[in-house]
Amino acid sequence: MSLTGDLSPDEFRAAAHSAVDWIADYLEHSERYPVRSAVAPGAIRAQLPASPPQQGEPLAAMLHDVEHTLLPGITHWNHPAFFAYFANSASYPGILGELLTAGLNANGMLWITSPAVTELEAVTLDWLRQLMALGDGWFGQITDTASMSTFYALAAARERAGFDVRTKGMAARPELPRLRVYCSEHAHSSIDKAVIALGLGLENLVKIPADDQFRMRAALLEDAIAADVAAGYHPLAVVPCVGTTSTTSIDPVTVVVRIARRYGCWVHVDAAYGGVAAIVPELQYILDGVDAADSFVVNPHKWLFTPMDCSVLYTRDAAALKRAFALLPEYLVTQTQGDAVNLMDYGIQLGRRFRALKLWMVLRAFGQDGLAERIRFHCELAREFAGMVHFEGGWELTAPVTLSLVCFRLAPSGATEQQLATLNAAIMERVNARGHVYLSHTKLGDRYTLRLAIGNIRTDRQHVELAWRELREAAAAITQGE
Amino acid sequence: MSLTGDLSPDEFRAAAHSAVDWIADYLEHSERYPVRSAVAPGAIRAQLPASPPQQGEPLAAMLHDVEHTLLPGITHWNHPAFFAYFANSASYPGILGELLTAGLNANGMLWITSPAVTELEAVTLDWLRQLMALGDGWFGQITDTASMSTFYALAAARERAGFDVRTKGMAARPELPRLRVYCSEHAHSSIDKAVIALGLGLENLVKIPADDQFRMRAALLEDAIAADVAAGYHPLAVVPCVGTTSTTSIDPVTVVVRIARRYGCWVHVDAAYGGVAAIVPELQYILDGVDAADSFVVNPHKWLFTPMDCSVLYTRDAAALKRAFALLPEYLVTQTQGDAVNLMDYGIQLGRRFRALKLWMVLRAFGQDGLAERIRFHCELAREFAGMVHFEGGWELTAPVTLSLVCFRLAPSGATEQQLATLNAAIMERVNARGHVYLSHTKLGDRYTLRLAIGNIRTDRQHVELAWRELREAAAAITQGE
Ligand SMILES: Cc1ncc(COP(=O)(O)O)c(C=O)c1O
Ligand SMILES: Cc1ncc(COP(=O)(O)O)c(C=O)c1O
Repeated sequence: MSLTGDLSPDEFRAAAHSAVDWIADYLEHSERYPVRSAVAPGAIRAQLPASPPQQGEPLAAMLHDVEHTLLPGITHWNHPAFFAYFANSASYPGILGELLTAGLNANGMLWITSPAVTELEAVTLDWLRQLMALGDGWFGQITDTASMSTFYALAAARERAGFDVRTKGMAARPELPRLRVYCSEHAHSSIDKAVIALGLGLENLVKIPADDQFRMRAALLEDAIAADVAAGYHPLAVVPCVGTTSTTSIDPVTVVVRIARRYGCWVHVDAAYGGVAAIVPELQYILDGVDAADSFVVNPHKWLFTPMDCSVLYTRDAAALKRAFALLPEYLVTQTQGDAVNLMDYGIQLGRRFRALKLWMVLRAFGQDGLAERIRFHCELAREFAGMVHFEGGWELTAPVTLSLVCFRLAPSGATEQQLATLNAAIMERVNARGHVYLSHTKLGDRYTLRLAIGNIRTDRQHVELAWRELREAAAAITQGE
Repeated sequence: MSLTGDLSPDEFRAAAHSAVDWIADYLEHSERYPVRSAVAPGAIRAQLPASPPQQGEPLAAMLHDVEHTLLPGITHWNHPAFFAYFANSASYPGILGELLTAGLNANGMLWITSPAVTELEAVTLDWLRQLMALGDGWFGQITDTASMSTFYALAAARERAGFDVRTKGMAARPELPRLRVYCSEHAHSSIDKAVIALGLGLENLVKIPADDQFRMRAALLEDAIAADVAAGYHPLAVVPCVGTTSTTSIDPVTVVVRIARRYGCWVHVDAAYGGVAAIVPELQYILDGVDAADSFVVNPHKWLFTPMDCSVLYTRDAAALKRAFALLPEYLVTQTQGDAVNLMDYGIQLGRRFRALKLWMVLRAFGQDGLAERIRFHCELAREFAGMVHFEGGWELTAPVTLSLVCFRLAPSGATEQQLATLNAAIMERVNARGHVYLSHTKLGDRYTLRLAIGNIRTDRQHVELAWRELREAAAAITQGE
């Protein structure tokens, strides 16, 4: 039968071909646009009809609106001078993978509902593990974000602790001790969120102080766990980080694992940003100790040229994860298929996008050498930028440069921390408002600090130099009272 | 600089154009392929190299491998005779939206990191609400799956209960009562998973018996809550379902809300599959009572022609959701931007894909009329199929047909339930193995039942007729002992 607003295959072909051309053109010239969107809150919304159309509209009209109405409201993560947060990339193979995923629209909730989804995920994650030079015996699965990966890992830890929280819950159980989780004061807020969501309570997330290079102080971790045990609490998990958000500092995983083992804690390593750097042979050491952990997370959607969203959770104890989540209602029962894995058993999500495809295409398109070369280059650019800052009077580096992030600020002598915060915030805002470069900030203790994070596949030396020029010009203008 | 394995824009253009043509062709001829993949476990994996390539490979080689190596491992959700589980669709506008999302690769974690991501999500979800004829005052957000949406809703319920679980957790708190959640015995397993993950314990998920049409028996709900209150437990939330997974039965939401209100329970409505049927004017009644609930979930990636993944959580109490999850570390602080919403505050995920784009394009491409017409047509096909079953000797319908799902089986007189289960499982497996049609099953009490779920945008009358033919042939062959 023929339905209202039916689309002809030809209309789709025409629109999709022009979208491909538009994207190719956009990616070659993303520098045309201001990095950070300059629209006021509500401005995009105000241009859109308040109600949906009664009748269908042509695809070409939508492409037009994307370009003219929505684009001004896009902050261009693809811009080579995007240096805020942790930059990410829509690389060509990643986009191609997304296109095919959308076309196939497979749902890999069960092995049988698309065997290739489950099996390509296993193969691709095993490749990624090998690229990071880790041992075998890791069970990998893709989630949307590192926040979810960490949440799952801590759910498995809670399950393995043996209190049968799955069945009995945690409330109204006099026999249950407080369950404690440990991370450094520099851990990402996703650990806090996981602890909240799991019902453990923020009070039971113990933030271990860091040393002057922003690494968890292992001796204090041991003290904290011992004190908790003495108080009758149960140490559940420790979450060291490889590449913290503020400074990319690297917690001493090997020592943390040794301590955790003594107390029967689960160790989950948050390597969401930093982990992929281990693809570079001379940076493999950043994952030292991870092979002895219980789980870890890396995000291909951050520094591995894979479009949003794609996070990977690896665990050595897939059985614990499965015990934490598996449920088999009759409508999902399938004939046993040998040892086929049904990925729905390892988390909350039932429906599962074919996310492995884009990651597989990225790994193949660049190969180990191509990936390593790019990550290495980003680290090199960061060191160059750090050098420029270091040799410029009045500016200072505020943290060691371990990977591709530089923490720095303008620090004229004699200024108070409060004054420095105001000054650097003003510099950042001036630079960001100009739209040629985009960076973000953090606080290290009471020290307000700017962050230049290099991670986009299109970032080249000239963009880093531009950032430095923009920063000095903004600083000059502000200190001269313009 | 020039890097190893660098891809030229031209290579991308060529590969993406041929991918578009391939997808267009695939969608026009998806009937070429067996619906359910016929590969053995491990067969896809065995064809893939065990290790990643050292050097980059051309995109064209990957397209070739997708077609020749992976495709046999795909179960074709796009096939018009996919009738298993709940069918979904990669519609043309949805694919186009995914392509643009991948190209832009915006991350809408904060408003400022792409205002258009946040604002288009608000506009599109407001459109969808209007399409379903619900009142205003709902705060919508996109999640990946209904399972996550429900998990968030119950997290908000837990927060609003006032026990400060966020800060104090649930363990080792003698003052805390058991926290109870109620749903029907036909509720989806995602409710169970949410209850497990939140640390409430499966024991505290009370499954209320259903009536003979598989709807929650409201009187028994009231009894259960009253008994719990008498026992000193705290009734936290009730989760009625509009369109249960096994039969698409519809719980009496209005009555459930009235009872829940008396006890201060949060009401979350699981309309993951069924909700969108309210776009059809004469089916609006299925959402009766939902406007008085606290939250509900609908999945555009099920029956609204939107590619995986896209679920929508609506809540009336966004403040509770925000209290349950919001955290603001310094590295995510931005200048206040009027009343701009930062969507990261309403859940666990930090990174946020631009998922609204595809949904917006679907709503525009079909318009209210086009969407309603398709959903109505699916319901009509379901009634036709039910008619064929009903008038055929030996077959029976096992549940009322409320939307586009038919529950039925071959039921020769005198057979035991055990025999009927074996017989119908054999019929299903025979049909599915032939590859022209794919359907799934469930159990209603002890009654093994086949399910024919109509929801793919390309399904037409001939496919439903084909299903019926295949079923009768399989039944004949089996009962004649072939
Ligand atoms: C160290 C670290 N962990 C976790 C996350 C959260 O990542 P996602 O957005 O994938 O949840 C981030 C985000 O920047 C991070 O830097
Ligand atoms: C009623 C109902 N709720 C929830 C879900 C879970 O959906 P998702 O895969 O989006 O988590 C389903 C899946 O079929 C369902 O039928």
